Amino acid sequence: MTRADWIAADWGTTNLRVWAMKGGSVIDTAKSDAGMAQLDRDQFEAALLALIAPWLSDTTPVIACGMVGARQGWVEAPYSAVPCMPIANGVVLATSIDPRLRVHVIGGLKQEKPADVMRGEETQIAGFLALNTDWDGVICLPGTHTKWVHVSAGEIVSFQTFMTGEQFNLLSGASVLRHSVDAKGWDAQAFEEAVSDTLSRPERLAAYLFNLRARDLLHGQSKDTARARLSGLLIGAELGAARPFWLGQNVAILGADALAKAYSDALQLQGVHATIADAERMTLAGLQAAYRQIKETT
Amino acid sequence: MTRADWIAADWGTTNLRVWAMKGGSVIDTAKSDAGMAQLDRDQFEAALLALIAPWLSDTTPVIACGMVGARQGWVEAPYSAVPCMPIANGVVLATSIDPRLRVHVIGGLKQEKPADVMRGEETQIAGFLALNTDWDGVICLPGTHTKWVHVSAGEIVSFQTFMTGEQFNLLSGASVLRHSVDAKGWDAQAFEEAVSDTLSRPERLAAYLFNLRARDLLHGQSKDTARARLSGLLIGAELGAARPFWLGQNVAILGADALAKAYSDALQLQGVHATIADAERMTLAGLQAAYRQIKETT
Repeated sequence: MTRADWIAADWGTTNLRVWAMKGGSVIDTAKSDAGMAQLDRDQFEAALLALIAPWLSDTTPVIACGMVGARQGWVEAPYSAVPCMPIANGVVLATSIDPRLRVHVIGGLKQEKPADVMRGEETQIAGFLALNTDWDGVICLPGTHTKWVHVSAGEIVSFQTFMTGEQFNLLSGASVLRHSVDAKGWDAQAFEEAVSDTLSRPERLAAYLFNLRARDLLHGQSKDTARARLSGLLIGAELGAARPFWLGQNVAILGADALAKAYSDALQLQGVHATIADAERMTLAGLQAAYRQIKETT
Repeated sequence: MTRADWIAADWGTTNLRVWAMKGGSVIDTAKSDAGMAQLDRDQFEAALLALIAPWLSDTTPVIACGMVGARQGWVEAPYSAVPCMPIANGVVLATSIDPRLRVHVIGGLKQEKPADVMRGEETQIAGFLALNTDWDGVICLPGTHTKWVHVSAGEIVSFQTFMTGEQFNLLSGASVLRHSVDAKGWDAQAFEEAVSDTLSRPERLAAYLFNLRARDLLHGQSKDTARARLSGLLIGAELGAARPFWLGQNVAILGADALAKAYSDALQLQGVHATIADAERMTLAGLQAAYRQIKETT
């Protein structure tokens, strides 16, 4: 019988992932595709119960992060303005009907100028800092909307978001390039060349993109090569813009999948040796830090 | 009764447009959404007849340009390599069953290095050069895949394609920005600022893109402004890469819609006063030039 002390929830746009916790230990886990984008406000509680009901007995705290706290989510958990601690304003309680639930949602972060927002990443960063106390430097969180985050003395000082991952998905899946780019496959040399192409000539991106199609039509370029080159072109352009973040800095990448590896390779080419940390583990550590914070203050 | 001497056809990926011609005069016109992407090889003839049957009597030449000549089209009309005349290798005959049809398809152009292709634009350029004899300079053809084309002594010397339009469509229609960008609306000042932002800092494009979302969430930026800014960011980056084409050059834009106007405005900011010519009129003039060429050689 797995009755949880508390429950951790990573609730994003497309997925819900939950962990049954006893103190600091995971005793069970579950996942569904009941992401924020699929749910109306009154459907969140049922989506959560569908996964965690077997773990409940008395009133159980649930600590959630991610898009569940967006305006279109279960409850709006306001943005705190940087510079601030990653989990700055504590949490917001969501309205639940089942008496066994007490759902705390972690708020996101905002930066006034240049305007920017994050929601979910602040929890990963809190987790990374909980596991690496006194760490100063820059954290890169690759994904649909890759973030570069400057961290100093336990605070998030500034950050910048790049739509690189979403551009990759749209271009490889929905543009004319879908005929020329495979869904999988890799070519390390093509990736490296592409990173260097857009780092040195970032304005040529839109031309390099169509060139991927023409190389297929005229020279039969392999679709693995095209996929690695597309990724490299987009990441190279991003690294060009993010240079003030990584140049001469202590860099950590929260990821550990193929995308995190690609960022690490691209940075390596610029002489930067980034630490890679598992993103899911950081999320859980961040939810745990928030749970401790809530216990101390209640 | 509108019996045509010959028929002009602009047959692209998504549309088919036909004109019934008596010599150089248009006597009727028709349009359908039977574009190349919607048709199997054996459906092209019926799609054409659905529009032009009323104009046919004896065997009638049809001159077609565009994706109808692609590998997935009615008949593959091979690419000619630049430098060459816009309608270089004449045409390829498509197989038709109806004895009243004789369908000539104009071939596209290719550039070996950097690899690039065009199909349809060569006919617009032929039309522009037929109407502007002895014209030398650079022709910009804005669209899904914008082309910059260097023309000298009646030949296409080199060209470069940018995926700017397709990026705009994907980002404004299918990315997270769709919530922040209107389908219509404009803000001339936001457009101009955005052009200048990416012309001077092209590598920041992916950051400027997410910033559009954050400006909406944090500052309630108008969706008209966001749309103009998105367009300006993409066109500014393109102008940065296309600088060797337009700097100090005689520039013509084949377009005449809002997009052509946007390119013209962006060039004006760089001190370049481009001539705008109607793209549809150029296509028809190019098909007419091809028709004359066929009559002379047969």
